[in-house]
Amino acid sequence: LSEQQQQRLKQKLSHLHAADIAHILESLATEDRRDVWKQIPVEQRGEILLSLAEPVRESMLADMPIAEMVNAADKLHSKDIGDLANLASSLPEQAVNLILQSLTAEQRKQLEQALSYPAGTVGSLMDYSMLTATPEESVKEVLAYCRKLGTLPEHSHYIYIVDQHNTLMGLLPLQKLITSAFDKKVSEVMSHSTITFATGDSAEQATFTFNRYELIAAPVVDDENKLIGRICVDDIVDFMHESSEQQLLRQIGFVNSEDRFSGIFSSAQNRWLWLAINLFSAFIATRVIGAFEDKIVELVILATLMPIVSATAGNVGNQACTLIIRSLALGHVTDHNIRQFYIKEVGISLINGVIWGGIMGVFVGSLYSAGIGTVMGFAMLLNFVLTAFVAVSIPWLRHKYNLDPAMGAHVLVTFFADAFGFFIFLGMATAFL
Amino acid sequence: LSEQQQQRLKQKLSHLHAADIAHILESLATEDRRDVWKQIPVEQRGEILLSLAEPVRESMLADMPIAEMVNAADKLHSKDIGDLANLASSLPEQAVNLILQSLTAEQRKQLEQALSYPAGTVGSLMDYSMLTATPEESVKEVLAYCRKLGTLPEHSHYIYIVDQHNTLMGLLPLQKLITSAFDKKVSEVMSHSTITFATGDSAEQATFTFNRYELIAAPVVDDENKLIGRICVDDIVDFMHESSEQQLLRQIGFVNSEDRFSGIFSSAQNRWLWLAINLFSAFIATRVIGAFEDKIVELVILATLMPIVSATAGNVGNQACTLIIRSLALGHVTDHNIRQFYIKEVGISLINGVIWGGIMGVFVGSLYSAGIGTVMGFAMLLNFVLTAFVAVSIPWLRHKYNLDPAMGAHVLVTFFADAFGFFIFLGMATAFL
Repeated sequence: LSEQQQQRLKQKLSHLHAADIAHILESLATEDRRDVWKQIPVEQRGEILLSLAEPVRESMLADMPIAEMVNAADKLHSKDIGDLANLASSLPEQAVNLILQSLTAEQRKQLEQALSYPAGTVGSLMDYSMLTATPEESVKEVLAYCRKLGTLPEHSHYIYIVDQHNTLMGLLPLQKLITSAFDKKVSEVMSHSTITFATGDSAEQATFTFNRYELIAAPVVDDENKLIGRICVDDIVDFMHESSEQQLLRQIGFVNSEDRFSGIFSSAQNRWLWLAINLFSAFIATRVIGAFEDKIVELVILATLMPIVSATAGNVGNQACTLIIRSLALGHVTDHNIRQFYIKEVGISLINGVIWGGIMGVFVGSLYSAGIGTVMGFAMLLNFVLTAFVAVSIPWLRHKYNLDPAMGAHVLVTFFADAFGFFIFLGMATAFL
Repeated sequence: LSEQQQQRLKQKLSHLHAADIAHILESLATEDRRDVWKQIPVEQRGEILLSLAEPVRESMLADMPIAEMVNAADKLHSKDIGDLANLASSLPEQAVNLILQSLTAEQRKQLEQALSYPAGTVGSLMDYSMLTATPEESVKEVLAYCRKLGTLPEHSHYIYIVDQHNTLMGLLPLQKLITSAFDKKVSEVMSHSTITFATGDSAEQATFTFNRYELIAAPVVDDENKLIGRICVDDIVDFMHESSEQQLLRQIGFVNSEDRFSGIFSSAQNRWLWLAINLFSAFIATRVIGAFEDKIVELVILATLMPIVSATAGNVGNQACTLIIRSLALGHVTDHNIRQFYIKEVGISLINGVIWGGIMGVFVGSLYSAGIGTVMGFAMLLNFVLTAFVAVSIPWLRHKYNLDPAMGAHVLVTFFADAFGFFIFLGMATAFL
């Protein structure tokens, strides 16, 4: 870029919200990102790094000097330990150590604590900048305190009410604070029944809780109900966006989420694991075909029809599988009602098998011979039912053994649909034709 | 249930939040739901219906007398036209008419308007219970007004500032209201640059905007910037949960979302469309095999290997396809950078083709013959590249013609991977072996 272009770019960027600059960076190719980054004032850099999608953030940090990272983080200091932890979790150890050194002892302890919560927990989404008051204060006193602060921390929609031991007593929404009589005590106007989270709670479960009770923010407490921090709805929305992306990518076999403009070779590696599993399982499934080669030579139309038997059952199985994975995530499946899921999914596969197996059987029968049509129809029916049964069983059993029900489920279902399909169809053809 | 059991159930339910009762209903089989429903007091029923997942709500409304629906809706009246519209959209026309009759002329107009916004738009998520003030009022006057109201509408985190023609001038967060000097004018303390939505805006885009700017609520305005309503983050979270479910279900070929305990037959119908498309496309793809039957009879191992060529390319294609669909949704793909997406995805498929085609070629070559191994390896490579190209093109072209990029994409990609795979592999075998 020429000096003049750089100036113009700098000026344009200065009018934009950090989140908008992040979006622009995400849509740019890797080389162009560097040009834009250079024109961004240091004060905004930390904010922008926080707004970036994780893979893009990581690719940008990869070729950034340590000093520049620490500098960007410095500008976040005053704001919030939660933000700082969020940023620090993407930084190399050396940078994190420098940042820790620049903090006060108390901040350092908080940041080290914040960094210790694993991803996907409420602790990792938590922030610490909440307002607290005691139940004995009057509404007037709390209002005066707020007024004295001048500006409240971001997203202060509630005041968290704690006793002198920092034990959570209730929540006081600002709405309530505004409308209550000045001389009332906080304990008289606060809401007592409050939904709380623990730092180890699953963030995904928290999204359902936020949705169910229409929460804006909620306190995070320890075993003794002492207030540690808060979790806000904007972090929940952010987590939902990120996790829906991750789920999507994991389902199709990405190891990590991926910067859309990252190098071709590193992206290829990101997709190898499941491609290898897919290749291996396809190879195993087709071994079944090898056992019936003589029959195929005798009746070559079988080679044409067998992929239909396996592909359609794969579709039926993946429908059942996705549905039970989703129901497990929503907490709708229990030991008490799992039987009904089996009955329903196997029942649906039976109906589908009768109808589509029947149609296909008649059609193939009229094209070739009644025998082939009959074998085709019954093979489809049987394969639908077996695959549906397996497709419910895989996520259910993984769930029972505390494993992620979704991981690899579709590859396994496809494998069973293929192997069963080839075996049933070619086996029946060998036996009856 | 015995009378005693009913009493106990009623008592237990009376302690629960409407959202919790809704969750219980969702996890129950259809027959059991009726027993629970009977014990729920009329005042809570509207609230519970609103909290239910849509397919469950619909299945429960299906065998409810009209009078009972209207009764449940009546209890929502006072609360909010947005809630009422949400409920009314699931009710039969007869019930909606009865509800409309029970409203004041102004409410009726609002409700009719609210019902006219199509699903998936900001209008359909909007509500109307916001607080407004004018820029000329003082902070003290606004505070006094709030105090006079006694309770503010749910989710009143902002006061919407309008002039005498109802034109939106700015937003005043309660936090700011609390901390500002009493004698300041609203115009001095409100925030001017406000993100607004139109009723026709896409709700999905709104979720990204809420995430990007960490919004809690935002005003909805018409073409002349007049305030119509507001959209709150709890509606955004709700929409995200519902739409991630719907996307998931649509991807695997459900026409509608589905009550997990609905009848087997109606559920089977829900899954027919794509199963039929899948069956038809598999049939077409396997027609390719028919053209090479002679070669298969001559070299029957081809029948065993061909499903591997198509299945692995299907995997590669679906990875590329999912990634571009997601990037389109996030607004990361434009006419300017689409070329880079093509280069990247085709490049990855080339690398994967060389590596996995190479491995498979050597392996198959050592098992059978060097000729078959060579054909296998090159067929995989070629099929990977072609399928990746098509997998990027399908969503991109659908997007260019303003169609939903995701709809049916995976079935199409699988179809191409199969048809190309069979043709390339069997064609090369016929030519060279």
